[in-house]
Amino acid sequence: LSYMKILALGCGNIGSVAAKDFAKSMSSVKVVIADKESAKAREVAERIDVDNVSWMRLDASNTTELLNALKNFDLVIGFLPGKLGYGLAKACIAAERDLVDVSFMSENPLALNEEAVRAGVTIVPDCGLAPGISNILVGHALSRLDSVQDVHITVGGLPEKATPPLGYTITWSPESLIDEYSRRAMIIRNHEEVEVEALSGLETVIFPEVGELEAFYTDGLRTLLSTVENARSMWEKTLRYKGHAEKIRLLKELGFFDEKPVEIDALSLPPRRLTAKLLELKLRKPEIKDIVLMKVEVCGFEENKRIRYVYRLLDRYDEERGITAMARTTAYPASIMAQLTLKKLIKQKGVVPPEKIGMKKELFDTILAALERRGIRIREEIVD
Amino acid sequence: LSYMKILALGCGNIGSVAAKDFAKSMSSVKVVIADKESAKAREVAERIDVDNVSWMRLDASNTTELLNALKNFDLVIGFLPGKLGYGLAKACIAAERDLVDVSFMSENPLALNEEAVRAGVTIVPDCGLAPGISNILVGHALSRLDSVQDVHITVGGLPEKATPPLGYTITWSPESLIDEYSRRAMIIRNHEEVEVEALSGLETVIFPEVGELEAFYTDGLRTLLSTVENARSMWEKTLRYKGHAEKIRLLKELGFFDEKPVEIDALSLPPRRLTAKLLELKLRKPEIKDIVLMKVEVCGFEENKRIRYVYRLLDRYDEERGITAMARTTAYPASIMAQLTLKKLIKQKGVVPPEKIGMKKELFDTILAALERRGIRIREEIVD
Repeated sequence: LSYMKILALGCGNIGSVAAKDFAKSMSSVKVVIADKESAKAREVAERIDVDNVSWMRLDASNTTELLNALKNFDLVIGFLPGKLGYGLAKACIAAERDLVDVSFMSENPLALNEEAVRAGVTIVPDCGLAPGISNILVGHALSRLDSVQDVHITVGGLPEKATPPLGYTITWSPESLIDEYSRRAMIIRNHEEVEVEALSGLETVIFPEVGELEAFYTDGLRTLLSTVENARSMWEKTLRYKGHAEKIRLLKELGFFDEKPVEIDALSLPPRRLTAKLLELKLRKPEIKDIVLMKVEVCGFEENKRIRYVYRLLDRYDEERGITAMARTTAYPASIMAQLTLKKLIKQKGVVPPEKIGMKKELFDTILAALERRGIRIREEIVD
Repeated sequence: LSYMKILALGCGNIGSVAAKDFAKSMSSVKVVIADKESAKAREVAERIDVDNVSWMRLDASNTTELLNALKNFDLVIGFLPGKLGYGLAKACIAAERDLVDVSFMSENPLALNEEAVRAGVTIVPDCGLAPGISNILVGHALSRLDSVQDVHITVGGLPEKATPPLGYTITWSPESLIDEYSRRAMIIRNHEEVEVEALSGLETVIFPEVGELEAFYTDGLRTLLSTVENARSMWEKTLRYKGHAEKIRLLKELGFFDEKPVEIDALSLPPRRLTAKLLELKLRKPEIKDIVLMKVEVCGFEENKRIRYVYRLLDRYDEERGITAMARTTAYPASIMAQLTLKKLIKQKGVVPPEKIGMKKELFDTILAALERRGIRIREEIVD
C-alpha cells in the first residue's frame, strides 16, 4: 500500500475536509489535491498541512488532460460541480480507475454500470449525506426486510437557530440551493413513479432537538428509484425552519429563479444569477453555526410482521476544527467510502450506489463505526 | 376664454385621461399634449379623439426648449416623472405661467413659494389622489376645527381581489412602487416630526367593502407637514391585502430593492432594476380590475368639543371607458384643479398646496361636486 496515490478532484469546502480526513486516516497513501486554478489547489493543500498531501493543477473539463492525469492514481474522489460529475465517471471508466463521487450530477450514474463492469472498476456515486448516508441506511434496512413498503427520508442543514430573513444560512453554493428548489422531484406514490414540484408536499415535522420544522419534496432519491423495487411510497423531503418554503415559493413565483434571461436596457441577465449573488451576500454567515438533521424511515415486512426501521442523525458544527456540520456529514462518508474502496473491501465492480454497500452487514457496521469515531452518531430504532 | 391654450406635459396613463377630461369639460380651450417622443404624443392625442386636443414634441428636460414652449400657453398640467417635476415648477415661475402638477417630486415645492408669489403665478403641486384629494379633505376639516389633533390617511389602489403572489397588481410604474416601499416616511408622533421605515407601523384595518386589509407607513404627507400646525399625530399609511408587507419586506431584506450595483461576471446591475422588470412582467395584469380605497380621519376640537371628521372614498374600474380606478382618482382631481385655476377661481398666488384650496368652502364644494359628476363619491361622517 505504500506506493498508492489518490486524486482528490475539486478544492471546495467538502473536498478539502475529505482530503484531510483521508490523508490522516491512511498516512501511507499519497493524496493529491487538484483544481483548475493552481493557486487554489496549492492554498488548500498548504492549509491542510499533512505530510502526505500535495497538489497539482488539473482542468477536469478537459478530457485529454483528465485522462492523462488519471493514469497516475489508484483512486479518485470527486467533488466537482454537478455538471462535470458524469464526465469524470466516464473518464475513470476509460482510464480504469476507481471513483468515489460526491458531485450532484443530473445524469443517472447507473447508465454507466455495464461499461464500468467491463472495465473492472468500482464507481460509487452520491457518497455524501443525502444522497449518501441516507442510501446506506436504506440499504441496511432493506437487507433485513423481506419486503419493503415505504422509504421516507427527511434531511436538512440548518443554522442552529432560525436566522432572518429566511431562517436559513448558506453553507454550500447558492446556485445549487436554487437548483434544489427548482428541480422537479421524482417520488413513488401508490407504487407509481411521479414527478412533483420542489417545495410541494409541505408538512410540519417535529425534531425534539430543535422543535417544529417544515419539510417539503426535493429531488434526492436518485439511484434509490432504480435499486428499491416494489415500494408503495418513497420520497425525500428537505427540512427547514417554518415559513421558509412559503418565502422561497414567493421568489420562485416572482421569477427570481428563472433561467431565461431578462432584458434590462442593453443588458441580458438570467434572474437566477442575480438571486444567487444576493443569497451569497445575505445568507453566507460563517459566524452562525450550523446543524444537520436527518431521519430515515423504512417500513416493510419481516416474517409477515410489519416493522419499521427509523434512523436519526443530528450533527453539529465542529468548534475545535471550525468545520460545519454540513461539511462533516458530506465529506466524512466520502473519505470513509474511498478508504474502503482503496482497501478492496468493496469488491463489487460497476456503478455501485451506496445502498448496495449498506446492504452488506460488515461494510455497514464498518462505515457506521468510522462515522461514529468522527462524532457522527446514527441512532437506530426498530418499531414493531 | 375662446383663445386659451393649455399644455398637458407627459403622455402616460394619467396624463391622457386628464387631458381628455379637461378637453371635454372646457371645449373652448385648446389642449396640447406634449411628450419628448412625438410618436407617443401623437398616438395619445389621436386616441383621445376630441376636437380641441392636439399634440407637439417637447423635451421637458431641456430648459431652453421648455421655457420657449411655455410662452404659448396659459396653464400647464404636469404629469412628468418625479425627477422632472421641480424643474417644471421653476420653469413655470420663470415663464410666468400657472401650473397644476401631479408629479411626485422628491423636492419640497413650498420652497418655491416666494418666487412664485413674486412672479404672480399659481402653482398647485400634488394634485392627484394622495397627495391630492387627501389634502383637500384634510384642508376642509381643518377649516372647520378650532384646533387639530390627529390626521390619519389610509389609502391604496388594489386589484378587486387578492391576486397571487403578492395580492397586488401594478397599475403604475414598478420603479415608483419600489420607491414607495424604500423611501423613509416622515410622520408626526407625539407632536414631533420623526422618520420611520416604509412598511413599518403595520396594522390590520377593516374596509367593509373588501374586508380585512393591512396598512403601513409610506411617505405621503409632504406639504401637510408644513401646512398643518400643532398636530399631535399625523401619518399616511398605504393599504394592501394581508400578507403583502411581509413579502415586500422579504424582498427588501434580501437586497432586491438595493440601488447599489451588484457585480455578476462582467456585468454590473442594481438589483432594483431587475426587480422592477420582474414586477412589471409578473404583476402587470390589465385584465384584472382595480379598486381605490381611501379613508381620511381628522380629529380636533370645535368649540371645546372633541370631534372627528371621517372621509371615505371607494372607486372602481370604469368598464365603459376602460379606465382604472387609479387613473380616475389621480387624473380627475388634476383636471378639475386645472379648470378652477384657468377660470381664476383659485385666486391665491404662490405655491398653493391642495389643502389650502380645500379650506375654502366654495372651492371644496365645487371640487367634490365635480368629482361626484365623474362618479367619485366621497362620504363624510362627523363623529362627536
